[in-house]
Parts: sequence; C-alpha cells; structure tokens
Amino acid sequence: MTAAADDLIRIRREIHAFAELPFLEIRTAALVVRELRGLPCSIRLGRDAMRPDVVEGYPDAAARAAAAERAIAAGADPGLAQAFAEHGTAVIADIEGSRPGPTWAIRFDMDALPIEESSEPDHLPARLGFRSTTGAMHACGHDGHVAIGLALARRLADRDFAGRVRLLFQPAEESVRGAAAMISAGAADGVDRFLAIHLGNTLPSGTMVGSAVGLQATTKFAAVFRGVAAHAAGAPQHGRNAIAAAAVATTGILALPRSSDGVTNVNVGTISGGSATNIIPDRAALTGEVRSDAEAVCAQLYDGVTRVVAAAAAMHDVGHELRATARSTTIASDDELVDQVLACAERRFGSERLRRTAVLSASDDASLWAAEVQRAGGLATYVLVGSGNPAPHHNPRFDIDESSMSVGLSWLEDIVREAR
Amino acid sequence: MTAAADDLIRIRREIHAFAELPFLEIRTAALVVRELRGLPCSIRLGRDAMRPDVVEGYPDAAARAAAAERAIAAGADPGLAQAFAEHGTAVIADIEGSRPGPTWAIRFDMDALPIEESSEPDHLPARLGFRSTTGAMHACGHDGHVAIGLALARRLADRDFAGRVRLLFQPAEESVRGAAAMISAGAADGVDRFLAIHLGNTLPSGTMVGSAVGLQATTKFAAVFRGVAAHAAGAPQHGRNAIAAAAVATTGILALPRSSDGVTNVNVGTISGGSATNIIPDRAALTGEVRSDAEAVCAQLYDGVTRVVAAAAAMHDVGHELRATARSTTIASDDELVDQVLACAERRFGSERLRRTAVLSASDDASLWAAEVQRAGGLATYVLVGSGNPAPHHNPRFDIDESSMSVGLSWLEDIVREAR
Amino acid sequence: MTAAADDLIRIRREIHAFAELPFLEIRTAALVVRELRGLPCSIRLGRDAMRPDVVEGYPDAAARAAAAERAIAAGADPGLAQAFAEHGTAVIADIEGSRPGPTWAIRFDMDALPIEESSEPDHLPARLGFRSTTGAMHACGHDGHVAIGLALARRLADRDFAGRVRLLFQPAEESVRGAAAMISAGAADGVDRFLAIHLGNTLPSGTMVGSAVGLQATTKFAAVFRGVAAHAAGAPQHGRNAIAAAAVATTGILALPRSSDGVTNVNVGTISGGSATNIIPDRAALTGEVRSDAEAVCAQLYDGVTRVVAAAAAMHDVGHELRATARSTTIASDDELVDQVLACAERRFGSERLRRTAVLSASDDASLWAAEVQRAGGLATYVLVGSGNPAPHHNPRFDIDESSMSVGLSWLEDIVREAR
Amino acid sequence: MTAAADDLIRIRREIHAFAELPFLEIRTAALVVRELRGLPCSIRLGRDAMRPDVVEGYPDAAARAAAAERAIAAGADPGLAQAFAEHGTAVIADIEGSRPGPTWAIRFDMDALPIEESSEPDHLPARLGFRSTTGAMHACGHDGHVAIGLALARRLADRDFAGRVRLLFQPAEESVRGAAAMISAGAADGVDRFLAIHLGNTLPSGTMVGSAVGLQATTKFAAVFRGVAAHAAGAPQHGRNAIAAAAVATTGILALPRSSDGVTNVNVGTISGGSATNIIPDRAALTGEVRSDAEAVCAQLYDGVTRVVAAAAAMHDVGHELRATARSTTIASDDELVDQVLACAERRFGSERLRRTAVLSASDDASLWAAEVQRAGGLATYVLVGSGNPAPHHNPRFDIDESSMSVGLSWLEDIVREAR
Repeated sequence: MTAAADDLIRIRREIHAFAELPFLEIRTAALVVRELRGLPCSIRLGRDAMRPDVVEGYPDAAARAAAAERAIAAGADPGLAQAFAEHGTAVIADIEGSRPGPTWAIRFDMDALPIEESSEPDHLPARLGFRSTTGAMHACGHDGHVAIGLALARRLADRDFAGRVRLLFQPAEESVRGAAAMISAGAADGVDRFLAIHLGNTLPSGTMVGSAVGLQATTKFAAVFRGVAAHAAGAPQHGRNAIAAAAVATTGILALPRSSDGVTNVNVGTISGGSATNIIPDRAALTGEVRSDAEAVCAQLYDGVTRVVAAAAAMHDVGHELRATARSTTIASDDELVDQVLACAERRFGSERLRRTAVLSASDDASLWAAEVQRAGGLATYVLVGSGNPAPHHNPRFDIDESSMSVGLSWLEDIVREAR
Repeated sequence: MTAAADDLIRIRREIHAFAELPFLEIRTAALVVRELRGLPCSIRLGRDAMRPDVVEGYPDAAARAAAAERAIAAGADPGLAQAFAEHGTAVIADIEGSRPGPTWAIRFDMDALPIEESSEPDHLPARLGFRSTTGAMHACGHDGHVAIGLALARRLADRDFAGRVRLLFQPAEESVRGAAAMISAGAADGVDRFLAIHLGNTLPSGTMVGSAVGLQATTKFAAVFRGVAAHAAGAPQHGRNAIAAAAVATTGILALPRSSDGVTNVNVGTISGGSATNIIPDRAALTGEVRSDAEAVCAQLYDGVTRVVAAAAAMHDVGHELRATARSTTIASDDELVDQVLACAERRFGSERLRRTAVLSASDDASLWAAEVQRAGGLATYVLVGSGNPAPHHNPRFDIDESSMSVGLSWLEDIVREAR
Repeated sequence: MTAAADDLIRIRREIHAFAELPFLEIRTAALVVRELRGLPCSIRLGRDAMRPDVVEGYPDAAARAAAAERAIAAGADPGLAQAFAEHGTAVIADIEGSRPGPTWAIRFDMDALPIEESSEPDHLPARLGFRSTTGAMHACGHDGHVAIGLALARRLADRDFAGRVRLLFQPAEESVRGAAAMISAGAADGVDRFLAIHLGNTLPSGTMVGSAVGLQATTKFAAVFRGVAAHAAGAPQHGRNAIAAAAVATTGILALPRSSDGVTNVNVGTISGGSATNIIPDRAALTGEVRSDAEAVCAQLYDGVTRVVAAAAAMHDVGHELRATARSTTIASDDELVDQVLACAERRFGSERLRRTAVLSASDDASLWAAEVQRAGGLATYVLVGSGNPAPHHNPRFDIDESSMSVGLSWLEDIVREAR
Repeated sequence: MTAAADDLIRIRREIHAFAELPFLEIRTAALVVRELRGLPCSIRLGRDAMRPDVVEGYPDAAARAAAAERAIAAGADPGLAQAFAEHGTAVIADIEGSRPGPTWAIRFDMDALPIEESSEPDHLPARLGFRSTTGAMHACGHDGHVAIGLALARRLADRDFAGRVRLLFQPAEESVRGAAAMISAGAADGVDRFLAIHLGNTLPSGTMVGSAVGLQATTKFAAVFRGVAAHAAGAPQHGRNAIAAAAVATTGILALPRSSDGVTNVNVGTISGGSATNIIPDRAALTGEVRSDAEAVCAQLYDGVTRVVAAAAAMHDVGHELRATARSTTIASDDELVDQVLACAERRFGSERLRRTAVLSASDDASLWAAEVQRAGGLATYVLVGSGNPAPHHNPRFDIDESSMSVGLSWLEDIVREAR
C-alpha cells in the first residue's frame, strides 16, 4: 500500500470514528483545516464560506456549543472549534494552478447521519476499532469523500495544472441544506466546471460512472399541529387533539398517490407530541420529505403534503403550520464534461470499469451547485466510484471498500491535470 | 381573614409557585417536612414511606438530581432534597390522639402537571405573582390539598381526638403511581378509616360532597415499535416503518368501540419517533390511557389497546412492546362513613351546601388506598369540596377559590374530632 | 292460554315471518287493515296518514313496487298493497270512547331490520317455523308491538272508555324517519296523552317500566365523495380517490372525541364505492349515525362528522356532500303521566315487577311524537315491558317471550279505561 | 377514404356504441362471428375457446342472461347470444395460409370499462352519435382492436401467406382474466409467434412501436371482512366492526412502501359493507390491485396486501379472507421478432414514425399469452400504434384517431405476409 493510500485510510478512519450531524461537523472541519495547513491554498471559513441565516432549522447555540465542547475534548483546535460553532462549519480551499485555465469546483460533503453504528464483529469499523462513538454514523461515505478531498489538495500542491481548483468542504448534505448556505455566501461564483463525487451506490468497487442520473428532487418539510389540552377523562370534549391530527397526516402522507411521470418517494421521518398520558395532547410535530426523479412530480407531492396536513388539522379542529425546510433538485449533467471525465478514466484505468451513467436513487444538494454553475454558463457532472458496500447506504452496517478512495483520488487528479 | 386562613393561602401559594412533576416533588416534600417540624407527629420519609422500585417509568437518577438542584436553588433544605431525590418524595406523618380510637388515614397529593401555566392578567396566580415558573403547573388543586394537610397537622397538634391520624403526602397521583408505591411500603397498614379529599370538580365553592362517584378505573400504557431504518429514497422497501405503525395504532386506539356498560375514555397522550427526514423511521413510542367508570369496561378497553398495538405493528411488519405502566380502580364508598362525614358537615355548615354524591369524571389512585383499607375491613370515602374553578381541571387557567380550603380543613378536623 | 293470548301470538308470528324494511311494510300494513276491518274505528291511510315527500332516502318506486309484488304473493290484499306502495304504509285508527275525555295516541312501530335471521334450531322462530324468509328480521320486537296494537283495538271495540284512542301504526322507526312523516300529515294533532311501548330491553319478562330514560338523540347521515377516475397504473396521479376519502372519514368518525357530558355513540353503518380494481375510484358513499343521551352532545358529534367528512374530502381533493337524513331527540317523560301508568300497573300486577325508570340505550322517534304532544300542552311517556330476550336487540338470535305481549296489552287497556 | 377504412370505422363505431363489461361481451362476440361468417376460417366458440370455470369472479348466470337479453334487443343473433351467455364469449378464428410457415396468434381484446362515457359535445362519439348507451365505455381502444382483427380476417381471406394465423378475440382483458381462460382451453397450443396490438398510449397518431416495455405485472385481489352485528347504541361493545377493518385496510394498502426496484402501483378499486346506519356492520368487502414493472416488486406488494388485510382484521377482531382473483406478468419481447416487425413497418411507412420501444404503464394479460408461447419456444412481442388520444386511457373522454386503425391493419397484414 502506498503512503498516499495509507493517508487516505488514516484520515477516513479518524473522521469515521467521530461522525458529526449536519452543521455540527466541528471536529471534522477542524481536521480539514489542520490537514490543509501548510499547503499552498487560500482558505475561507465561517461567514466567508457559508450563511447560517438562510438555513431553516439551523442548530441552536446550545447544540453548537455542546458540539464544540465534544470536538475539543476529541482533540479539535479550540479556537477553530469555537469559530465553527459560531459561524458555520463550511471550509473552502482555493488552489491556483501554474497556468491559466478554467476554475474547477469539487464538492466533498462532511456530515453524518443520526444512526447508531453497528457494533457487530463482522462490521469492519467495529472490528478494527474505528466505529463511531458519537451516536451519529458515516453511513453514506462522506468520511471517504473528505479524505479524498484532502489527499487531492496534497497532490495538487505542486500547482502543476491549468486554472484553479476550489475544494468545497460542505456541511449538511444529508438534509440538503449545506449547499444553499454556501452558495449564498458566493462559493459558486466564478466556477466554470463543477464536480461532485460519491462513493458507493452498491456498485462494484472501483467502478467509475461519468454521470449519476435519476437524482431526485426533494422537499423536506416540518409540520406543527396546535390543539387544546384538556383532562382526558374529565372533559375530553374540550380538548383538540394534536396527536390525532399528526397521526392522520402521517398516514395521509404515506398514502399520497403514485405517478406515472416519476418515482414518488415520501417519508415521515420524525414525530413528537403530547405531554402526559392523561392530557388530551395540545401539540404535535412531524418532519418528512418527498422526492421524485421528476421535478414536477416532486412539486405535486409537496402540494399533496400541503393538502394532507391542512386536512388533518381541520379534521381535528387544530391549528397547523407547514414549512418547507430544505429543497434540492435534479441534475442534468453536461455531455461535454461527462465525455471528458470518462476519457480521463479510460486513459488510466481502461474501459472495463467505466459506465457512462448509473441511476442514483437519492437526493443531493450537489444539484444546487450544478444548477448554479450551469446557469452561469459552466458545466457540471456528478461522478460515482463504486465501493462494494456490504450494506445499503443509511444502514447501521454500511461500509466502503477503502481502496476505492484511491481510484476516486486519481480520477479527480487526472481530470484537473488534463484539463485545458 | 383568620390567621389559619392566612396560613393556608401562604402555603398554597408557595407550593403553587414551584409546581413539580410526579416523583420529583422535592421542594414540595421538603416544605412539608419544614412545616411539620416541631409538631407532635412521627414522620416517615424515603424508603419507609414509599418503594420506588415498584414504579414503572420512575424518573432516572439524572432527572431526580436535576430536580433536587432546582429545589435547593429554590430554598429547599439541601439534605432533605438529596434524600428525597435518592429515596422518593413521599412523606407520612402520624399524630396520636389523646384517647383510644380508630386509625384514620387522609391522603394529600403533591404532584403537578406538565402544563405551562397561563400568564394572562386575569389569571389570579399570574396577577398576584405566584404563577408557577417551573414549566409544570398545579392545574388540579393539589397545592391546596397539601396546604390543608399541613394546616390539619397544626390543628390536631393538641391531640384532642380519639385514635390516630395518618397524613399521607403522596407523590405522583396524576400518573396514578404514587399510591401503589406507598402502599408497597406499608403505608396503609393498620388503617381503619380512609379519606381522600379533592378541591374543585367545577362545583360551587364551598359545596361539600360526601362521596365522589363515577371515579374511573384506568390503565396507563406505553408502547414501543421497533422497525428497520433504510434510506427513504434509495431503498424504502428495505425499511420497516415504526412511525407508520404508531400512527395506525393511535388512530385505532382513538376509535376503540364505545360501550353501553360504561364510559370509554381513551387517550394517546404522547408520541415520539424517528431520527431524520430521510431515514425510514426505525423506532416510535407512544403512551396513553384507557378509563371507565366500570372496571370491566376498562379491562375491555385495555384488551382493545393490546389488540390494536399488535395489529398496527403487524401491519407494518415491525416489532412491538406494550406495558401497562400504572393502574387505578373505581371506588365504592362505605355508606356508614359517608353518613358520618355528611353528619359532621351538616353540624357545622348546615345542609344547604351538602350533597351525598357527585360524579367525578376522573381517575385517582386514592381508589387503591380505599381498596386496600376496605380489604382489611376498614371504611373509605372520597370527599369533594367545591372550589368555584374558573376553568376546568388540567387547563392552563385552572384555579381554586382559596377560601374553600378553610371549608375542607374544618370538615376534616371535625370528622377526626367527632369520631369515637 | 286465553283466546286473546292465542290471537296475539298468531298475529305476531304472521308478522314475524314476513319482516319488512322501513317504508316497505306493505304486507304488515295490509294485515293491520285486515285485522281492523269490522271494528268501530275510523281508519286513515296513505297521504292522510303520512307524507312521503318529507322523507330523506324514501325507497324509490321500483323498490316499492317490488315490495308490493312480494306482499301480494304472500297474501296481501292487492288493492291495499298498491295503495301502500304508492302513498306510504302508515295506518291510523281512531276509536271513540263512549264518554268525553282526553285523546290518547299510542304508537306501534311496524318495520324490521336488514338482518338475516338465525336458522339455528334453538332459535324459537326457526324451530317453530315462523322464521322470517324475507332477508329482513324483526330483531327489535316490533312484530309484538303491532300484535298488541291490534289486540288493543279489539278490546276497546266496546268503546267503554272516556275520550278517544288513536292507534298509530308507524313505519320506519329503525331509521327514525316514520314519526316525522306521520306528524307532517297531522297525525299528532289534538293529542292529549302520548304513549310509546317497547318490549324487551333485556328486562326480565313481564317487568313494567313507567318511563324509559336515557333515550338517545340521534342524527343519521349520508355522505357522498366525488373524485376523478383514472387508470390505476397508467395515470394514478390524475385520479382523485373517493374511496380513500371515505376510508379516512370512516376512521375519523369512529375516533370522534368522547364527552363527559353524555354518551357518544358513533357508527358508520354502510359504505360503498368504486367500479373496478384498475380504476382509481371516483365515487364513494357512506351512511352512519351519531347518538347521545344529551341533545347537545349529539349536536357536537354531528358537528364532528361535518368536520371529518369535509376534511377527508379535502385530504384527497375530492368533492363531497353530507346530509342529515333523519333526526330524533331525547324524551323527558311527564311525571304526572308516569305516576298514572305506574298506578294502573300496580293495581293489576302488584308492585313487584314495576320500575319507575330504566335506561334505554337506544334512539326512537317516539321522541318526536312526545315532543310534538308536549309542545301542544299534552303529556307523554315511553313505557317498557320486559320480554326476557335470549339475545340483544338487533342480533340474529333476538326473540321475545310472547307471554309479555299480554302484559303490555292489559296495561295499555287499563291505562285507557281508567283515565278520566 | 378507402372502403377498407370505411369498414374499420363502421365496425368500430358499432362496437363502441354497445360497450360491454368483461365476460359479458355478448353482442360484441356475436358481431365478431357475424363478420367472420363467409370467410375461409375455422371458428372456435364457447368451451372450445375458453374455460369459464378457471375464472375467479365470473359473472353469475343472472348477469349473463341479462346481458344476453340486452344483446339480443340490440340486434345480436339470439342463438349465438344464448351460447355466449352459457359458455363464454371468446372467439378464435384460424386462417390457413396457402404455403407452409409458422403459426401466428394475434390477440384482439373485446371488453369495455365500467365508465359512463362523456356526453359533452366536443367528445366525438357523443357528437357523431355513437356514444355508448350501456353504462360501460370503450375507454381503452378495444373497439378499434376488434375492428382491426375483423378487417385483417377479410384481408387474409385470400390465404396468400405462409403458415397459419389465429385471431384471438379475447374477453376480459381489463380484469386480466380472459387470457388465462382461453389459454386453459388450449388456445395458445402450437403457436410460434405471438403478437398483441394496442392503440393509443398517448403516442402521436400513426406512431408504430415494435415493443411495449415496462408492462406491469399485477395481482388483483378481493378481501372480505366478517364481524358481528350489534345495536350501534344499545351494545356497540358487542359488535365487531367490519367496515372499520376495511377502512384501515384501505388506508394501509394505499400506504404500502415505495421501492427503488420498480414502480409500486396500488389501488383499492371497490368497497362495500354494512346494512343499516344503526347496526355495527358485520360485513365489508374490498377489491383492488397491485402492479409493478418488476415481478418481484409486484410480489412484495401483494405480500404487503396480505399483511395489511390480516392486520386490519386483527385490529378490529373480525375474520377475513383474501383471494388473488387474477394475475398478469411482465413481457420480455423477443429481439428477433421486434426486428422483424420494425422492418415491416419501415418498408411501408419509412422510419420516421417508428420507435423500437415505448413505456406502457399498464398491465395486460397479453403477457400470459407471450409467456406461454415463449415457454414453448416461440417468439412474442407487443406492438403499439399511436392514436392521438385527446384524453388518457380509462377517462370518460378517451377517444382514438380512427385513421390509426388502418396503420395497425396494414402493419399486421405485412407482418404476416412477409413472414417465412
């Protein structure tokens, strides 16, 4: 194993062991800065890298302070941790090539999921001792993405390429809120070529896909129902039952009609409500999402959520609020760029492991980066590197084949170096 | 206003302002001990007064420690507060009369509800500055009960009565768990006459009722649904949706059939579940209760809950657990004792404000005290004192007419003094 | 057994064997007229006895013609059967007493239920061969009521009583629509005393109750949902699903809140909808009812139905209509009349089998007769005669102890004869 | 317009005006026989053409007799109509070519849908006076298919082709039950090449598609819930509510999880239950279907239906039965045959209007014919001819561009004539 591969693995495992939730990637961002130090890149942090104020449901100060405390206890630089807690966890690193050329932006997402990682002995991170101990888990490969991004920065430190490379270390991809926050801070300005990379997708390890297709537009939402409390036996008729409304809304959302125009994914991801067994519950809340590979179907599904939530509230005579907390869209990769990245891959790896497209049944706010860059006349694509996952994404036993990180690293390096 | 009445009001307001949730009545219990000090009574605390280990859902050590800390900050004796946090908040005070006679037990409940108290200016506690600031609220009159119990201890300090009086300062009536915990510690042993007193019930202030009827048997329950998490778009078919099961169970419980044999109150009081919008939720939980004025109907309703919860889990292919977390029963007051308490009331107050019975559409684990005493050959009744409530019990604007406390106090005093 | 008792049983069994649904009691009404013929009474039929045009959901001409055909085939007078089919099945018989006195009206209901009668050998009508063969069933004792009414006409044929007796042979009690239709035709005009009689109510046979209490106000309703059909696979997103709305409405109605002010019975009695498995259903309908022993609670329940039906339609974006198809109210019997009927019963039967009141957990449009008579200054009560039922009302194995009919007959006769 | 085109239109309109439901296509089948008379083909009818005994939910004798009566009144040959009513409506016509060659089978479906056809003046059949007056409607183009089949028989009457052509006039495609009934009678025996043709699918008129893809496997089902009737106010606790179970099952089926492995269409197409507003309903039934373009997903969905129906019954303590009433599968067209039919089309029409594949979001028991023929070593495909539909299939305003029938006719003729 090469030293570079060693490095990839070491960094990935360090990140993996301390998985952090969206917008709380404080130790991870501090690690990114630590690894970038000494490299010939200009770094933007905090308000220069993202705008927390445009984010729905941004963690409150107490949650951020607690995350900073945990990050510091786990070795993060205290000053950096405080700054990330205060101003946001995004990190942008620009490396200037030695020759004129296009501005590349490559996105590496940093956040983990609220999943308790498997501790079964045949789960490699558990067996080798880098299982996450934070309660969150990198069950989507973002740990590998960050490792690739940092290794790429080291590789490109020779500046032997045309143009400029912007490495986007993005928070909160899972909740599709980080990209918009960074774009709002100008992070996509002046970008000519946008790439997102993702490990996994149940492809054989090392498979290289030039363009993920079928990426799903999504709207995340939060609904609150406000009723009236009453003694559950003394005066149930005076209560207005917020949990009953939330239950009806949940079933209604799950039963939204299918469409022949696209997939129709729906989820109620969280629910909460009520205060005691003997009180008619006066408050309930739920969060969820809709998705489709067709933007119009996604919009219809959200119309459906709007209708269902209002009707469930009306049925139980309670008030309600519904907010769209995050949105993402579909991606239409640019053929020109897809051709280019596939040519790079073929030159180094041959054609056997290449695929032009593969369906990615997921959402990703890389779509917002792509749309922003394309709107300004640039090109974009979203590449995949197979990683032989033993379990599906978002599963407590998800893992990546760590050797796939080298494939991704070399591919990105080649793309940048070969561009004119 | 007499000094005694002044005292009642002072104590009641002090308790009201610092309302505490079930089994966390630490400052309240410390106040009880403070007020009993110096009186000729023997006091039992902690393990001698209750057994926490028989309680389902007893607050964990962290919650109890936090409550103790708050109580101490609010003036509670630190040593007592620690002891209550460690061993339970029940307080039993026995006063020996100067003559032989029966052993009386009178129950005063201490706990408050998880209701945010109204801060509207026409709500008296808000206007006069003793609104609760703890997030919990005495919205059921227990603050008045404790004040009466303490005033009664002072009155009976002359020991000019026959027999013995046991004052039971009980935690956790609202969740019908405190009585069983105290009975398990032997608190009902040797009792010949049991009385429970309640202020309110929307009766005109000062009305005296010899026997509350229609008190409802109840079973509180907690259900947990365990599914399988999955990526909500990538592999929804691999998820097993615990929130969906909880929603179906909620609607099913609310729709349990009515009965011509008794009332059929049902409630799902709390719900929670899930972890993120984009993950099929793998866990959900709910708590609730069933009640009826007929014990058999209550049992049928709980059978229904059992069936509904199992079916909802089966429908969504998730695991489930259902536990009965607390139970209470109906009361059949003893006519002999009801006659006696009504005779006392008539002697002092005349017959105008008296009622033999009034329906109390509620549950109360006073029923467990009554059943225990009756099983051992004793007598029991549950008396009411109207308190002119401006809003129903368990409502953020509930309040009592403080002058009704004097009525209750004198009534109880007379009952004890006149007994042979 | 007396000849009178023989007659009661013969007539009851003849009616029982040919049970007829509401407003289709053609053979029954023809039998009533047949039995009244030759008696000194004036008979009103058809439009003089009821107004079909005020009835919601009155059977259509085809259904009435088919019922007439069946009735004629079963021996009904063809001319009468045609007339009943055309103008309604109510029959009113007035008998003038020989002395001046009050006008009595006594209601006998004629309709049966859409229940397939038990054919088990221990079900008496099956064993003795008078089980209904029409698909409908007298599972509520109306067959016995009509038999009593006809026997009373024969008894009073001597006109040896004061005042006037009006025998009201009423259709459609079960759907609480017949009384209103007859009252609209003036059938309650001039009545001073109103009596309804009911056999059964699970009382011991021969028990006499002066006043049924707890009779429930009710509103029957019919809801229709109108959606849009679509190919269930080709374009489900273009459908608007009426069955989905009806299902949500059903669950919502069954889950309407309980009340501490009275019982809260709810039912969705019928449902229908859709046309084929592969078409998103564009139409669904349901019928149901709400009931309470408190008129205000009944009104609140129907408000709830209104809200639930509208919300269910809104949730699935379908149109809807909701109609109250029938209403009935509570009864407040007049003490004076209750005293009188109990005195009559005591004189003949002694006091042992008497009860002043018994709870009747049911609805009956006798309440509309009572309210109408009371509004005009008259008196009313609803008496019960126990009939030792082996199975509950509305059960396929319901039956009456036929000897209880004689008790009812004598009681009514005495009431009329003893009145001044 | 040619005489042939005139004939196509005349026949299509005659069929359209008298649309008939599955297995009741009596007038349509009689018309088919009428038109085939005199042509050099051997005809199989009744038991030689289909086996009614293998059909779930086959119309009962009364329904078939009524349909025959209507067909005769509308001009059908009485003897034929009786025979179709008795033995089934399938018609098979074999035409022998003058040279040896393969045996072709071409399927033409005859049934219509339970949809009331639009009477709006801009709906062509309404304006030109051939709107269906039967209550059913040809809203899927089968009228055009039968017209093409009959015209093809006339064209091929010269026997100037190699092999043999079997024209399959199939009942009950919409409920995917007719193909299995015909296959059971041996109708697929000896077939070497199978073709199904469908007009429409919202393709531009005249577009020719060599292979419909995405055809959905489906399972149709029927569920019955059996509870216990009870008086809705007198003893609701003794009832077991079958409609409640059906409502819960409906919502549960509509909320079955989506899949990333294929589309997940679900429908509850019909519902019925109960007998009266005041009786807890003791019976309810529903029918529905699941579909997917992946056979495994379809099977998972039906597993889900099984689970949901059982759980809904368990929740309401009622019995249940669930039957799969019909099944259909996916189609994998044979490339060799697709090449051949596209080559034919190109020769006559050029390549502009050709497509190799088009997605057909529907199910069709043509898949069972195809599977049967392929299993025996034959080849199959399912071709489409665009027909410029103004409204989607299964919509009251569906219509076909009648000129597209000529395209389909010529295409089929060429395929047969050019085959070796």
